[in-house]
Amino acid sequence: MSQLASPPGLHVYDTTLRDGAQQEGLNLSVADKLAIARQLDELGVGFIEGGWPGANPKDTEFFARAQRELSLRNATLAAFGATRRAGSTAAADPLVRALVDSGAPVVTLVAKSHVRHVEQALRTTLPENLAMIRDTVSFLRGEGRRVFLDAEHFFDGYRADRDYALECVRVAAEAGAEVVALCDTNGGMLPSEVADVVRDVLDSTAARLGIHCHNDTGCAVANSMAAVDAGATHVQGTINGYGERTGNANILTVVSNLQIKRGLPLLEPERLREATRISHAISEVTNVPPYSRQPYTGASAFAHKAGLHASALKVDPDLYQHTDPAAVGNSMRTLVSDMAGRASIELKAREMGVDLSQDSELVVAVLAEVKDLESRGWTFDAADASFELLLRRHLGRGISYFDVESWRVITDAREGGEATSEATVKLVAGGRRQVATGEGNGPVNALDHALRVALSSVYPELDRLELVDFKVRILETSHGTGAVTRVLIETADGTTTWQTVGVAPNIVEASWRALVDGITYGLTRQGVPAR
Amino acid sequence: MSQLASPPGLHVYDTTLRDGAQQEGLNLSVADKLAIARQLDELGVGFIEGGWPGANPKDTEFFARAQRELSLRNATLAAFGATRRAGSTAAADPLVRALVDSGAPVVTLVAKSHVRHVEQALRTTLPENLAMIRDTVSFLRGEGRRVFLDAEHFFDGYRADRDYALECVRVAAEAGAEVVALCDTNGGMLPSEVADVVRDVLDSTAARLGIHCHNDTGCAVANSMAAVDAGATHVQGTINGYGERTGNANILTVVSNLQIKRGLPLLEPERLREATRISHAISEVTNVPPYSRQPYTGASAFAHKAGLHASALKVDPDLYQHTDPAAVGNSMRTLVSDMAGRASIELKAREMGVDLSQDSELVVAVLAEVKDLESRGWTFDAADASFELLLRRHLGRGISYFDVESWRVITDAREGGEATSEATVKLVAGGRRQVATGEGNGPVNALDHALRVALSSVYPELDRLELVDFKVRILETSHGTGAVTRVLIETADGTTTWQTVGVAPNIVEASWRALVDGITYGLTRQGVPAR
Repeated sequence: MSQLASPPGLHVYDTTLRDGAQQEGLNLSVADKLAIARQLDELGVGFIEGGWPGANPKDTEFFARAQRELSLRNATLAAFGATRRAGSTAAADPLVRALVDSGAPVVTLVAKSHVRHVEQALRTTLPENLAMIRDTVSFLRGEGRRVFLDAEHFFDGYRADRDYALECVRVAAEAGAEVVALCDTNGGMLPSEVADVVRDVLDSTAARLGIHCHNDTGCAVANSMAAVDAGATHVQGTINGYGERTGNANILTVVSNLQIKRGLPLLEPERLREATRISHAISEVTNVPPYSRQPYTGASAFAHKAGLHASALKVDPDLYQHTDPAAVGNSMRTLVSDMAGRASIELKAREMGVDLSQDSELVVAVLAEVKDLESRGWTFDAADASFELLLRRHLGRGISYFDVESWRVITDAREGGEATSEATVKLVAGGRRQVATGEGNGPVNALDHALRVALSSVYPELDRLELVDFKVRILETSHGTGAVTRVLIETADGTTTWQTVGVAPNIVEASWRALVDGITYGLTRQGVPAR
Repeated sequence: MSQLASPPGLHVYDTTLRDGAQQEGLNLSVADKLAIARQLDELGVGFIEGGWPGANPKDTEFFARAQRELSLRNATLAAFGATRRAGSTAAADPLVRALVDSGAPVVTLVAKSHVRHVEQALRTTLPENLAMIRDTVSFLRGEGRRVFLDAEHFFDGYRADRDYALECVRVAAEAGAEVVALCDTNGGMLPSEVADVVRDVLDSTAARLGIHCHNDTGCAVANSMAAVDAGATHVQGTINGYGERTGNANILTVVSNLQIKRGLPLLEPERLREATRISHAISEVTNVPPYSRQPYTGASAFAHKAGLHASALKVDPDLYQHTDPAAVGNSMRTLVSDMAGRASIELKAREMGVDLSQDSELVVAVLAEVKDLESRGWTFDAADASFELLLRRHLGRGISYFDVESWRVITDAREGGEATSEATVKLVAGGRRQVATGEGNGPVNALDHALRVALSSVYPELDRLELVDFKVRILETSHGTGAVTRVLIETADGTTTWQTVGVAPNIVEASWRALVDGITYGLTRQGVPAR
């Protein structure tokens, strides 16, 4: 281990692969888990909780393959499991044995610390639960493992019976648990209560404490911070706040807060600068769409819309952002909208590497077109790429890749059967008239296919582009289908995505416009010349 | 005002319509704003900030229409605006005049309290900024308005120059501002800092304090709570945490925490039980997909996945949830289909004059179909009429007015011209095969016309029906099985309106289904027999 990712002072403990995977709709294969573990290691977390070997065959396989295939540079792997069964011994418990067999250097044991959970869920006695903790921790220590203990439902348990909850912590620490993580399993705590309890447990036991929070009161991050302020030195969380119900504490937010706001050196700065990339890369693996409003790493986290701010943003960005987005590998974006003015257009141009500060005539012309389009239903704050194309046209840098002659799409169905759509596109590209037909499961899909067929021989670069999202909004709803339709399309090329907009009374025409912009932008950003 | 929604002790101040609307991709029409204001009033918030009249024509119109069209039972409307321009007087400032003209009983003035923002963004002197606050507050008080002051960038300003920041608060309070809301405009604060600053401001001024937080550190809710703990008695936030960048404090989470966890009686309990419904209803208006992991009101907030919990959940649900989901109108996911589902089916049947309380077999069959359809993207919450038609079919009371053979719609355009749509519908009605064609400015409009032409001779009652609204949502299905499209259609007959739903991979097919349901329901409720 050449570089120490977290200082010995504070553990950054990631449980994306175990508790994060409890999220509704999130299913990870073993390969997914290995891919995420590599990203976590790159990020520089101290510990990666990989799953529950023995209880879950996929997790058993994960640890087996991890030993062969993962060469972690920063992180230590932890296996999660429960204390031994009541009325037995740890040595004789096959699930405890599976933890040893996993080969993970750290075992994180979940234990009950709430009297009613011991009695009603575990169906054993309070002394036997303590014995289970003592015996299992000692056994694993004897097997040469570092042992952390997750005290499940600790905060509720502390409320129900403080003495018993404390006794669980004491027994674990005495038996050799290196950390006892206090878990707000139901997620109902608020920061002040968390701080009070952590302080009391520190005063009443000799244990090193950790914190494990869920976001049911919207306070998972603040609760984690409060515990650290009160003396906890081990923080658990998940990437993107994945987890059951409202999710776990978002480890990237907690780490960014502690490091940037509190100055704790948890990750090397160049690793923290990978946070945005890693957050998105893991979204790709989990197939959970990234949450754009996520603190620090979200696509909107440093996006500015209000015209009020744009003029000042130019002068001094620090006045309008709570931290430098580069610290977490994110970047500032300005959004153009009817609230925006000249300043936001200049700023947008600057993002494209164009200085418009001296060209006030052009800025006025762009502004006029934007205002006119927005009054007719366009929206550019959600369609950056369409705005950039507009700006390029004003700058004389617009590229016209093809001239459309006409298009047509037919959707039909016989009762009982599924509808099908077929589109025909006629256009001129590469100096030749192209006529192409495409089918799809909807008119837009069919048009997209036809357009690609028509262009593929002239622009093979189109192969990389994919239509990934499609949103429809009917404006001025009091007129029913007589209203104007706004379509937002998201296109991807494997490295990034961009949004385009189209507006028309006819939903198919609106879609067509957004589609053409999406493709034009994709070719432009690849630097493809018109042919 | 028969019922006091928030006690005088603490203001619940909603800024969804103003600061929430700064969210990327969120664009509200005046009609949308009025619809949201009605929902907020039902929820029982104390204040609704409607927008910035004078600065934004849409907001000027909102306040004008609000005076005529909104009859708020609980909430007071607030107009947002800035202090007067430098070197002028409030009385002579047209934007200040627009605030008076808005007719809103409360004016919330945004003012600078950060020295660098005064100098660099406002480009005026520190004393002039104080004069602007004093003058504008006094003027508006003289015009009979209650005045709240949003001290923008207050926390950063306090750090930069504590004395000046405090002086802004003092001046505002002395001039008659009822509340000074301390704004964490850049969202970078953590709870402990917020608490310290609020305490200091309370000790150093005579102002009543409010709090306005953004979620850039993932702590907007905790920061709001910390301010209240420290003595703030006015909390600002937005529904679903809408807002610029990472969003504002989610007002429903803050209120739920304060009321449920801290026992503050902010909303009447029966209003808080509307929180989940209102959160989702407002999502429909904003067309921002609901965030399922949102605390308290999210679809996943009380959903349990871990098998570990399932058996214990039955014995004592309180062991596994941090609060009773019914308190916010949400429900534990596992119970939805059994309890709420059956009850609503029986209730709906009773509305139709049918007692199903003894016919459990039929209820089970309906429930099974509803669950199956909902798993495939249908939603009956927003499509009562489609649900009633489904129930009628199970009761043997479904009326089939026509048998569709096939339909087809062609949309085409030549470049430079508008797209046109033409639909052909073939069906049997009145014992005869009918083939009809209709044109429209979109495929749904064309299908609607063709269907009417095909049916008009047999069902002249159709003349009364009008398609008045049309909403489209693309539903993400996890792991690339292809998205489906959900279309909601609203149909009117002059006395009432009803909603129907259609779901299909093809948007035109989904629309067709909703259209056919809309017409069928319209004929059914007129008591028209099949001909």
